[in-house]
Amino acid sequence: MSASLNKNSQASDPPSQSLTERFREVRQLSLSICDPLQIEDYSVQTMPDVSPPKWHLAHSTWFFETFLLKPYLENYQEFHQKYNFLFNSYYKGIGSHYPRAKRGLLSRPSKSDIINYREHVDERMFELLQTSIAEEAGERVHLGIHHEQQHQELLLTDIKHILCTNPLHPVYRKKIGGTPQAISPLEYLSFPEGFSTLGFNGSGFSFDNEHPHHRLWLNKFQLCHRLITNGEYLDFINDGAYQNPLLWLSDGWDWIQNHQAKSPLYWENNDGNWYEISLSGKNPLELNLPVMHLNYYEAEAYARWSGARLPTEAEWERAAMDLPVKGNFYHPDLLHPQPAVTSSKTALNQMFGDLWEWTASPYTPYPGFKPAAGAVGEYNGKFMVNQVVLRGGSCFTPDRHIRKTYRNFFPPGAQWQATGLRLAKDGRP
Amino acid sequence: MSASLNKNSQASDPPSQSLTERFREVRQLSLSICDPLQIEDYSVQTMPDVSPPKWHLAHSTWFFETFLLKPYLENYQEFHQKYNFLFNSYYKGIGSHYPRAKRGLLSRPSKSDIINYREHVDERMFELLQTSIAEEAGERVHLGIHHEQQHQELLLTDIKHILCTNPLHPVYRKKIGGTPQAISPLEYLSFPEGFSTLGFNGSGFSFDNEHPHHRLWLNKFQLCHRLITNGEYLDFINDGAYQNPLLWLSDGWDWIQNHQAKSPLYWENNDGNWYEISLSGKNPLELNLPVMHLNYYEAEAYARWSGARLPTEAEWERAAMDLPVKGNFYHPDLLHPQPAVTSSKTALNQMFGDLWEWTASPYTPYPGFKPAAGAVGEYNGKFMVNQVVLRGGSCFTPDRHIRKTYRNFFPPGAQWQATGLRLAKDGRP
Amino acid sequence: MSASLNKNSQASDPPSQSLTERFREVRQLSLSICDPLQIEDYSVQTMPDVSPPKWHLAHSTWFFETFLLKPYLENYQEFHQKYNFLFNSYYKGIGSHYPRAKRGLLSRPSKSDIINYREHVDERMFELLQTSIAEEAGERVHLGIHHEQQHQELLLTDIKHILCTNPLHPVYRKKIGGTPQAISPLEYLSFPEGFSTLGFNGSGFSFDNEHPHHRLWLNKFQLCHRLITNGEYLDFINDGAYQNPLLWLSDGWDWIQNHQAKSPLYWENNDGNWYEISLSGKNPLELNLPVMHLNYYEAEAYARWSGARLPTEAEWERAAMDLPVKGNFYHPDLLHPQPAVTSSKTALNQMFGDLWEWTASPYTPYPGFKPAAGAVGEYNGKFMVNQVVLRGGSCFTPDRHIRKTYRNFFPPGAQWQATGLRLAKDGRP
Amino acid sequence: MSASLNKNSQASDPPSQSLTERFREVRQLSLSICDPLQIEDYSVQTMPDVSPPKWHLAHSTWFFETFLLKPYLENYQEFHQKYNFLFNSYYKGIGSHYPRAKRGLLSRPSKSDIINYREHVDERMFELLQTSIAEEAGERVHLGIHHEQQHQELLLTDIKHILCTNPLHPVYRKKIGGTPQAISPLEYLSFPEGFSTLGFNGSGFSFDNEHPHHRLWLNKFQLCHRLITNGEYLDFINDGAYQNPLLWLSDGWDWIQNHQAKSPLYWENNDGNWYEISLSGKNPLELNLPVMHLNYYEAEAYARWSGARLPTEAEWERAAMDLPVKGNFYHPDLLHPQPAVTSSKTALNQMFGDLWEWTASPYTPYPGFKPAAGAVGEYNGKFMVNQVVLRGGSCFTPDRHIRKTYRNFFPPGAQWQATGLRLAKDGRP
Repeated sequence: MSASLNKNSQASDPPSQSLTERFREVRQLSLSICDPLQIEDYSVQTMPDVSPPKWHLAHSTWFFETFLLKPYLENYQEFHQKYNFLFNSYYKGIGSHYPRAKRGLLSRPSKSDIINYREHVDERMFELLQTSIAEEAGERVHLGIHHEQQHQELLLTDIKHILCTNPLHPVYRKKIGGTPQAISPLEYLSFPEGFSTLGFNGSGFSFDNEHPHHRLWLNKFQLCHRLITNGEYLDFINDGAYQNPLLWLSDGWDWIQNHQAKSPLYWENNDGNWYEISLSGKNPLELNLPVMHLNYYEAEAYARWSGARLPTEAEWERAAMDLPVKGNFYHPDLLHPQPAVTSSKTALNQMFGDLWEWTASPYTPYPGFKPAAGAVGEYNGKFMVNQVVLRGGSCFTPDRHIRKTYRNFFPPGAQWQATGLRLAKDGRP
Repeated sequence: MSASLNKNSQASDPPSQSLTERFREVRQLSLSICDPLQIEDYSVQTMPDVSPPKWHLAHSTWFFETFLLKPYLENYQEFHQKYNFLFNSYYKGIGSHYPRAKRGLLSRPSKSDIINYREHVDERMFELLQTSIAEEAGERVHLGIHHEQQHQELLLTDIKHILCTNPLHPVYRKKIGGTPQAISPLEYLSFPEGFSTLGFNGSGFSFDNEHPHHRLWLNKFQLCHRLITNGEYLDFINDGAYQNPLLWLSDGWDWIQNHQAKSPLYWENNDGNWYEISLSGKNPLELNLPVMHLNYYEAEAYARWSGARLPTEAEWERAAMDLPVKGNFYHPDLLHPQPAVTSSKTALNQMFGDLWEWTASPYTPYPGFKPAAGAVGEYNGKFMVNQVVLRGGSCFTPDRHIRKTYRNFFPPGAQWQATGLRLAKDGRP
Repeated sequence: MSASLNKNSQASDPPSQSLTERFREVRQLSLSICDPLQIEDYSVQTMPDVSPPKWHLAHSTWFFETFLLKPYLENYQEFHQKYNFLFNSYYKGIGSHYPRAKRGLLSRPSKSDIINYREHVDERMFELLQTSIAEEAGERVHLGIHHEQQHQELLLTDIKHILCTNPLHPVYRKKIGGTPQAISPLEYLSFPEGFSTLGFNGSGFSFDNEHPHHRLWLNKFQLCHRLITNGEYLDFINDGAYQNPLLWLSDGWDWIQNHQAKSPLYWENNDGNWYEISLSGKNPLELNLPVMHLNYYEAEAYARWSGARLPTEAEWERAAMDLPVKGNFYHPDLLHPQPAVTSSKTALNQMFGDLWEWTASPYTPYPGFKPAAGAVGEYNGKFMVNQVVLRGGSCFTPDRHIRKTYRNFFPPGAQWQATGLRLAKDGRP
Repeated sequence: MSASLNKNSQASDPPSQSLTERFREVRQLSLSICDPLQIEDYSVQTMPDVSPPKWHLAHSTWFFETFLLKPYLENYQEFHQKYNFLFNSYYKGIGSHYPRAKRGLLSRPSKSDIINYREHVDERMFELLQTSIAEEAGERVHLGIHHEQQHQELLLTDIKHILCTNPLHPVYRKKIGGTPQAISPLEYLSFPEGFSTLGFNGSGFSFDNEHPHHRLWLNKFQLCHRLITNGEYLDFINDGAYQNPLLWLSDGWDWIQNHQAKSPLYWENNDGNWYEISLSGKNPLELNLPVMHLNYYEAEAYARWSGARLPTEAEWERAAMDLPVKGNFYHPDLLHPQPAVTSSKTALNQMFGDLWEWTASPYTPYPGFKPAAGAVGEYNGKFMVNQVVLRGGSCFTPDRHIRKTYRNFFPPGAQWQATGLRLAKDGRP
């Protein structure tokens, strides 16, 4: 990807925080996220999409080593000659790499080897940050920080998969918070037709795929004031949705058949009672919490069944335009979506944080999109096919990582991310 | 799909032609297309995407039997009780169906059984057409006719795959026409920014996915005056494109690895010389003819390599707006793209016919799209994910089947359709 | 394989029949077997193990062209330069060959092309047979005849698979013969311990895998006087055998899981009633006929369940030693196993013909086995792993093809051959 | 399996060693084998055949819990209610079990959980062993001990696969011993024809598959005095063996194609030089050491290429009959085959220890074989198809685990066991 960073520091950063402090803080968080793990948890790969936690810790370190230390720190000695092969994810411009689906076959390097790797790279990075670095290098530090934050979210979703697919249902952190007793009925907020914009136009960091900022025409539309809940989704299940091909996209129905899907990921039905397995183990399904771990097929089918549709990313960005970027982002004691609190027709709930919201928009380049030159140009652009845009961040997203214009993307069959569903409708004439 | 048909007859129809004559003519053409085949050719399925020719002949017949004769013709007796199971393609609302990938395992019903089936259904259809049929039924006849025309194109692409992947290189029809000696250099035509429209707004038949007609904003853009040729594509190959991951979308590079792809489909390199296997057998590659049988990955990568991009479907439709729907459509003696003839900056070549043109647009519903009620609602809408829009028709498309607003769609990896590539660029400021 | 042929003519041949007449007769039978087929039936391959009938017709012709005409007939011109590639089955010494699993993708050469190929080769073979051919060539003619006879049985089993897996249940020949009303109870015949022999030691043709003739020690054993029937096998099914892993070899249980097997091949249960699909279409299961289309796992599990075991091939050959080679072999009007007729303790029924009998013996070389030099050495020897020996021939085996020492072999999971089951036990002390 | 244990203690046991001491010693060795591992090594599964080391530690414990403590120790409380599901390998009689191929997806229970499990079960076992246990229970303790010893060998082969397929080539133990400078030329020892025996007939422990002891007739044969070396196998490779289908069984050639095999497992060719990756990391190939990690296809093909064959298990057992059970068995400092030392025509080298020797014998039941009643009957008998017998033990086999009549068995494609190759020939007339 190409980072676009204005010279003034990012608006949301505390003005007093230096880049070095920011770097230190973000690097530390990756380790904190892993604190509740046992050593064995660092190495497993429970499906090809999941990476072992120690791989995330090493790959985000490799990113700094490869794109900062090697080109910008004089006399830098790489930590280990085979780590470039092992921890390059998909940057073909950097050379060949170990196959993704086999990351779980590597017991070595061990977790402690990788902690050493992190320390080695961090020390050299501190050296580099004390010098007067070039503007391009500074932009890459920001890019590396945001890259690590993306992997923090992936760390959490992958840890969740590792623990929640284990028959022993291990607990990552104890359940916190009571059960919401009620939830407001669905309401739709209306937006008028007119020109709107898509893309980043501010100061601070952004990814290349948020550019160029451009205008486009929007028809009238309505957007639901909150996310769909477990209870509402259960109505869909109980209506026979997973047995009725007419509710699904053709590829979605094939996905159901191939996976024998009967519910969202991590739901389990024992003798007629539904349970949800989460980072706090296996617990009865809470009907008033937002439904989580849907893939695009499920979100789209639910919308069709309910007589609504998913919002486009332009509609979502239009609606988010005047809201503060606040919400239930990563917090070590929560890590689960929270119930909607407001029921007024004038306020949108849960737009930021809680759950990534599937949009109706395939992930495509904005008009005039240009990926960066060099290997970092492989960051975002080469995935612009067969994927769908998600917006708004989740309870696994570090709070200073996200923006209103942030475009997340996953293939339509992916369930293991922290995904949810907000409905939209065409505007009333 | 839902057919939208205005009461006045379609503009492009000869005014004197009755619906009955039109039906007879289209039904006859499906058989004519199969005339050069040997009986064995009717039954094979050379890959899961391909259907045996006899299956196409039966399925298009089943369509009339299911959607016209059963609901509208009194006392209709179905031809065979198992044909609904065997020849339903994907209409889950109609019941279960034989698995697509196994169509080539069925030697029975034989070709002659299916000819009998066609005759049985045609006779009853003539009965029905002589009655005063309801408007809905009339629309369905048009739908059935266009459905059969779509299968005529698929018949040709599937016959081509059946013959061209056979080591004996059988000939479907002799090569006609000389070799073009020269081709005009690439030129771009410019289009200004402004509101444009997408979708069908006229009289006559259209598919549901062309609706609703709506306006949208277009930036300035440029569109190339002709298709890319074999010779131009060969430069891309000779530049090492199939060995260079940096030119490809990530999924495209995976496609290359999985298929060991080195060229478009049906190209063969013997001792350094390129050949193209076509409906006229194996012949030396003609450099000045349009390059054919690219998938989206190849078209997109070529565009990137050449410093251009693919047009969006809105750009393509804008450019096509003022052109007549004329071109190298299905003609039994041609069946191959022809060279571009015009080099003027003021004229677009090959927009209709010759080859379907990959656009940059994922296949998604137009704002406010509604599929038809009932089983025909499965025609188009349920495929609106993981596919890409193609425009303009090809040398395999029956000429009265196509419109300016016609949206074809295939998955990005599909090579076996009659696909080609036209470049676009952003407008100059 | 290497054919071992003594100079005196084969005992079972009519003394007056010349090699030329024998050749003509066998070649003709392959065509007769195909007479009831429609042209489409000649080309399909319903699973990788099955070959299209036209492939069998071509391959057995290729065998004569390759191993007789090319080396022995002066100035022989091959019929088509690509047929060696297309119709070589697995003789790596002859060159590369078309992949087995894709034989059903070839609509060309057509059936009539292959009839022409047969006629071309037959004419040249008659030329060759009129000359005074070398002894080695004479042996190869016999080998080619027996090779063609093997493919006659495969033709029938493959035709059966093509027709019986078709949802229309086409009929190859009408059902003949009444339903047997009763069957004699199982009896065991006892054989004493002592030296016995394995392998061919006579005059006439034999395959290399029947050599060398050698002695071996046999313990006392008992052999059942007839084949197991459908009714007896049904008891096994009704006892829950296909749901009970403890009755099966571990690989057999995996086979059940992977294929969701619930019965022998071609059995179908509709509303609690069992039917058998055969060359005469779908008919109620006849309880007193021998059970057919078991694989080794099923035969072995039935034996365990019943407290018996399968015979070794040495035991089978010992028991067959004094019997005439007579039985229900290929006859165009039968083509199905017939009921056992004798119930005496002193006579074995159904040892020859009816069904190939699974033995307990893996297919291994006899001590001192040597495959022939040259490409025909690939005939038998290279398959001596992961296969099990079957004995006795079937209702699909041409009668002059079989011997007491004949070793058929298939992988333990194969169901589509004409296989059945005879029980054995250790001898009583 | 059914253990057959005579009442007198096993001949090879120190007479003074009690069953309790034996149990303690064997249980301790499993942990010692894992001493050089890092915690991450305990959890990975590098291919479906490999089990994670912690799984072996748990499964061998489960065996004692299931077959001793639950039936024989009053008031025994199982350690964890889900461990029966997780650590049952394939005993269907005991209930359902976790799928084998997914053992590497389980980070929990952790290594330390499993150490606790072992301690819990060991303490209860000591309780049980202090009581006056029934004879059947005593036999099962011996069975459990031998079961654990089998898993000690598997632990070593699986650890080797985990480390040797890792691109970092981690070292398990430093290389010990010099490089042998010379090796004696191949010699064959002759054995006369006559009756011989197969199977166990002594006192002490044996597995059910070694029974019943029985006689059989053997022809004259010759057996090579030592194992084939790396250098000799390299001649085979350098002769183009892996490119020549005529040297291989048909299934073996398919194995080569599917795995792109070019050498035994763990060999690597860098710039024309051969290396072997072993428990002491990556080192130059030592030509005079026995070739290791061949599968049956490779062993059989080498034998054919060299004009010899593999011995049958009866021949091997005949030759071993008069030898002491001594050799290079498990020793923590060796763990690699050692060079042959004797070149005399009168002595066989390396018959016990060093490497398991592929025989020509498929793994089948001895005449009259009966598996034990109950779930332990699943130990051996249900694998008697599609596998080949190996004899003699290896440098990974605990020395008091093996017997002359011991039958090991693996599928013909398995390379990761400590397997090697000894040649045989028919006897000279």
